Amino acid sequence: MDTKNQHFDRDLGKIMAYLEEGAYLKARDVLMNYVAADIAEMLEDILEDLGMDKAVILFRMLPKDVSVDVFSYLPGDDQADIIQAITDREISYIMKELDFDDKIDVLEELPANIVSRILEKTPRDERRLINEFLNYPEGSAGSLMTPEYIALRDDMTVADALAHIKRVGMDSETIYLCYVKHADRKLEGIVSLRTLVISDDSKLVSDLMETDYVYLNVYDDQEEVAEAFKKYGFLAIPVVDNEHRLVGIITVDDVMDVIEEETTEDIERMVGVMGDDERKKYLDLGVFRHVKNRLPWLLFMTVALMVTGSLINQFESVLSQVIVLVGYLPLLMGTGGNTGTQTATLIIRGLSLDEVDLKDIFKVLWKELRVSICLGVVLSAFNFLKIILIDQQPPLIGLTVAISMILVVMFAKLFGGTLPMAAKKIGVDPALMATPMISSVTDMVSSVIFLFTASILLGIAI
Amino acid sequence: MDTKNQHFDRDLGKIMAYLEEGAYLKARDVLMNYVAADIAEMLEDILEDLGMDKAVILFRMLPKDVSVDVFSYLPGDDQADIIQAITDREISYIMKELDFDDKIDVLEELPANIVSRILEKTPRDERRLINEFLNYPEGSAGSLMTPEYIALRDDMTVADALAHIKRVGMDSETIYLCYVKHADRKLEGIVSLRTLVISDDSKLVSDLMETDYVYLNVYDDQEEVAEAFKKYGFLAIPVVDNEHRLVGIITVDDVMDVIEEETTEDIERMVGVMGDDERKKYLDLGVFRHVKNRLPWLLFMTVALMVTGSLINQFESVLSQVIVLVGYLPLLMGTGGNTGTQTATLIIRGLSLDEVDLKDIFKVLWKELRVSICLGVVLSAFNFLKIILIDQQPPLIGLTVAISMILVVMFAKLFGGTLPMAAKKIGVDPALMATPMISSVTDMVSSVIFLFTASILLGIAI
Repeated sequence: MDTKNQHFDRDLGKIMAYLEEGAYLKARDVLMNYVAADIAEMLEDILEDLGMDKAVILFRMLPKDVSVDVFSYLPGDDQADIIQAITDREISYIMKELDFDDKIDVLEELPANIVSRILEKTPRDERRLINEFLNYPEGSAGSLMTPEYIALRDDMTVADALAHIKRVGMDSETIYLCYVKHADRKLEGIVSLRTLVISDDSKLVSDLMETDYVYLNVYDDQEEVAEAFKKYGFLAIPVVDNEHRLVGIITVDDVMDVIEEETTEDIERMVGVMGDDERKKYLDLGVFRHVKNRLPWLLFMTVALMVTGSLINQFESVLSQVIVLVGYLPLLMGTGGNTGTQTATLIIRGLSLDEVDLKDIFKVLWKELRVSICLGVVLSAFNFLKIILIDQQPPLIGLTVAISMILVVMFAKLFGGTLPMAAKKIGVDPALMATPMISSVTDMVSSVIFLFTASILLGIAI
Repeated sequence: MDTKNQHFDRDLGKIMAYLEEGAYLKARDVLMNYVAADIAEMLEDILEDLGMDKAVILFRMLPKDVSVDVFSYLPGDDQADIIQAITDREISYIMKELDFDDKIDVLEELPANIVSRILEKTPRDERRLINEFLNYPEGSAGSLMTPEYIALRDDMTVADALAHIKRVGMDSETIYLCYVKHADRKLEGIVSLRTLVISDDSKLVSDLMETDYVYLNVYDDQEEVAEAFKKYGFLAIPVVDNEHRLVGIITVDDVMDVIEEETTEDIERMVGVMGDDERKKYLDLGVFRHVKNRLPWLLFMTVALMVTGSLINQFESVLSQVIVLVGYLPLLMGTGGNTGTQTATLIIRGLSLDEVDLKDIFKVLWKELRVSICLGVVLSAFNFLKIILIDQQPPLIGLTVAISMILVVMFAKLFGGTLPMAAKKIGVDPALMATPMISSVTDMVSSVIFLFTASILLGIAI
């Protein structure tokens, strides 16, 4: 990506060097060539490498309006650090200027004593609104929305509406869709700034507004919020309460982070990592939290692996007579796990992108059956030849491995296709520990298939 | 998510019933209660369940302007199907009305003969532009952008600019940021519609425009495009050619799909599924393409598993003397794979979200070391007790498993943390087959650790 200044890393190095010399003004001058998001990124690095003090001094040297923008781009924990290092007066300024939804995000991150110190200085009306917003559950549409939107009445003309917009100003993204409300605060329709700008001044808002609009409820989960934005491609979606009163809007820029967060959660669940209520960065999460998030499913899988072990021990007579079979056990178990995981991942992704539907189960299984036969035959042939030619084992051993291999791949693919769909059917997240679950089950089944096939082909009683 | 009409599924059922009776008008009336994105979703289902003919008849009954919107929301393959089923006149209408970037997407999906039939009827200027756009590499910024943007001159006043915007109209998202160009087509600055609307009519564009803007190059990869949108949170970003001439803009709604696509690619790579040049839906991809995408890494892993098998066979004397150890082999190998995969997934995600940086490698390893000791001790104790109390094995066997377990978990976590960072360091995608690679290596190492520990503790010569 090109930004206007393509020398990001070089300039960051320069700034750090200036800061180490104490040449703050020079550092600031280089910094000021960048847009707020870039300055925030640099400050993050400075904070990490040179420590809080230098980063805060530099932050305080930014022009006031720039500093608010930069602040809104910083990650939550850095915001909290900065808030604790600057004066009350500076805090008040930043809080006053921040967009409402950013303000709520900051307050959610701060320690309670600082929050109450800030709220004390906030005008009563806004304080009530903040408290209301802080009460929406984490991850709900309510916690993502901002109450800053343009409200119009349906009897306004285009000229009235534009004059109103000019008067209230309103920041950034929130201006491009305007909301028409009844006297009872219920949402009546939506009109875009585009429509207002290209329409005749004398037209009435009621004739221009769209009444077939999409909306969200304050208690909708953020996953549904992300779905709605992906599906409709709107810049903003209004959020209403249970009485259909307009309480806020969600803008697309805030949804990009949600999409990232939801995907990350899915991926982590797939490998059996439990999420915290509030997602923290990898490095910010303490050792014991990491242990707590990872241990439960590891214990579960350990039990499954113990069962596999016991199953294998049932075939002790087979193994002790043909000890070379032990060397092929990982091959069968590993192939089962790998092929099953591939299928499960494709299906989980397909389900979450709505490419695959529950009613497609038979199509999925039919496809996986054919794919697994092709893959199984190729892998079997490969292994058979290796066992005969390189390991110099008798053909019967090769045949045992080859036949087991086809059966294992077929089982793993069909199981890997069924499990996520079954999970979805009973209302469980299909991503939930898919990888470990599949490898545990295929381990068991693969070893039984292999040793059972061996006992039959080699004529050894179990 | 609530849309205005909350009875999506019920209404879809109704529409299908009407269609089966041939009551098309009734079906259309129900359909018309929905917004374009919803109608498109219903048509997709109708196409799948009732076949092309009924879906096309219904599509043709939509009011013309609605039909274009609906068309733009349909997936590429359904668009191609519909284009082939409607008349040239209808095609011309849809093509004329589609946003330019949607038009390019449609043309990319269509068979060559239809594309040339469509291009024949396109005015020469537009045809040249279309050909130019069709030439940008798949997945480049050029292939995502639209040439439909508002161009202003810096000597315009706000009143001039607004009058110009009103005159050219311009669709949907593309209107909210206006681009100021030099006479030589080079990009000079950006001014938002918001700024124009809230500023005095007599002000000059040159005084209002932002000259510190972020831009992309036509050949930037779509991953960089997505990064830029996530980082800056803009509604649109201008795209320039190598001479810094403005050639188009990318709007945020087109980037949401890219984010999905890139994440899907990452996830699939993690489990060793190769992507096609053009991502197709799971069900649309043929059996042999599925085989082709999955086979290469499976073969690679098979070789790794063969090596593991040979390593295990080196310990034949240990295994044949204490055959019960075979039953604990899957436990050690499985635990190694599971714990290693957990760590690798967290690190890959951290890297792709920029939460973890290459220079954090020692922090990562230090954290994983502590986490792995905690997890290793808990898992070991659990296994030790189970082996003594339930399996009734001698304590030395339990100790062998317990000690190996701690070593395996430590190795797996440190390896799972190092591998993705090493991959990134040498410029390989960290997600590339992370899961299979890690389980292959930990399989080998785990079995060697286990059997080596056993041979020492149990005093058996290898």
